[in-house]
Amino acid sequence: MKTINTRRSIRVYQNRDVDNDLLNRLLSEATHTQTMGNLQLYSVVITRNNENKKKLSPVHFHQPMVESAPVVLTFCADFRRTTKWAECRKAQPGYNNFLSFLNAMTDTLLFCQTFCQLAEEEGLGLCYLGTTLYSPEKIIDILKLPKLVMPIATITLGWPDESPAVSDRLPLSAIVHHETFEDYTPKRIDESYKHKENLPENIHFCEVNHKETLAQVFTDLRYTQKDNEAMSENFLNTLKQQGFL
Amino acid sequence: MKTINTRRSIRVYQNRDVDNDLLNRLLSEATHTQTMGNLQLYSVVITRNNENKKKLSPVHFHQPMVESAPVVLTFCADFRRTTKWAECRKAQPGYNNFLSFLNAMTDTLLFCQTFCQLAEEEGLGLCYLGTTLYSPEKIIDILKLPKLVMPIATITLGWPDESPAVSDRLPLSAIVHHETFEDYTPKRIDESYKHKENLPENIHFCEVNHKETLAQVFTDLRYTQKDNEAMSENFLNTLKQQGFL
Repeated sequence: MKTINTRRSIRVYQNRDVDNDLLNRLLSEATHTQTMGNLQLYSVVITRNNENKKKLSPVHFHQPMVESAPVVLTFCADFRRTTKWAECRKAQPGYNNFLSFLNAMTDTLLFCQTFCQLAEEEGLGLCYLGTTLYSPEKIIDILKLPKLVMPIATITLGWPDESPAVSDRLPLSAIVHHETFEDYTPKRIDESYKHKENLPENIHFCEVNHKETLAQVFTDLRYTQKDNEAMSENFLNTLKQQGFL
Repeated sequence: MKTINTRRSIRVYQNRDVDNDLLNRLLSEATHTQTMGNLQLYSVVITRNNENKKKLSPVHFHQPMVESAPVVLTFCADFRRTTKWAECRKAQPGYNNFLSFLNAMTDTLLFCQTFCQLAEEEGLGLCYLGTTLYSPEKIIDILKLPKLVMPIATITLGWPDESPAVSDRLPLSAIVHHETFEDYTPKRIDESYKHKENLPENIHFCEVNHKETLAQVFTDLRYTQKDNEAMSENFLNTLKQQGFL
């Protein structure tokens, strides 16, 4: 069975370090990922120091993996290195704009995901922290990220000490469109979400959250309009601060 | 040798189709990638029809792979399905904002990259088209993408009919930072770019472009400030049009 078919996020790690040579090899292999004009518009900050993990923990809502994982990796969209290179080579860089941010974010996420797959194939476990996009300005402060560098993704990494069930996914028919976009009808929505909504854990999830439908757990509690709007404004302000807008 | 260590973009394909069952299996396996709240904020439009490839070709600067590949895949950030789901389930969605776009873009790129790796392990070849971010409004028009859907990545896919050399990459020391960001000094820039700048193909690349340094080829010709600024404005306008800003 391929690793991908049994992949799940790992939040509990053995008390065992991730060897530096292994980490470097996996990061190095991941650089073979496609990248815009072969510019590699990313960098990665490796956190092993406990004091630094403690500082990062509140930014990630005190999820315990940040302090318990042997390694925390912060993947950054980085147009600074390319800009500095240009400045050192009599060239006029023009990367202080939104498109350049998107290009660097793309490079960063492709590189990050290749790394994740290579790490999982090696038997390592990891958890991807979406919280990175919620308070980027705090991560910038802690990791001392200069202009034209934005944190995009955080990974906690270690040797698994749990074996959670594989998560359900929507049927492929929910996400695939042929030739042109076929808009979602109520019938297609029903077919796409039926399995997920009827899973015992999701029925339980509604009950403990006192919600009538699973969708309400997401809209009213987990990802609310109010939070999304506040974090949107914050992210745009941080993009300005970092010189990308 | 792992596939990743010999990976390169493939732009020339055999005259041989990519079986639909194989494509569906690879897309299906890729859905095991981590995703925000298990919402799978992406969709993919599969283009096999020659007329539709012809329409997409100018958007991608007439790169010949778009018409010659048996399959073109457009990966889209998609908060529409989740929004429609909420609307069908007495929930109030709040995903018409910038943070939701970033979350969906993240999910899309992670999914896309897992798919790329699985396809390459299967022996398929592919080329990632960064041009997707340059004129998203044209792709939206051709593929009829509704609000809360944005094209993020395009992949041309097929069985390789070429075997290009593996591209050079920067040394790992150029992209890794320990504990906090260690800013790039002229010395570190020299060490990071020395190998790349001295490759015969890059020396040749400067000559044919009549530039003194390799960096100038990028800043003056390939990715110019003027183009970046125009495309930044265009992308922001398209985000507004699609309801994400």
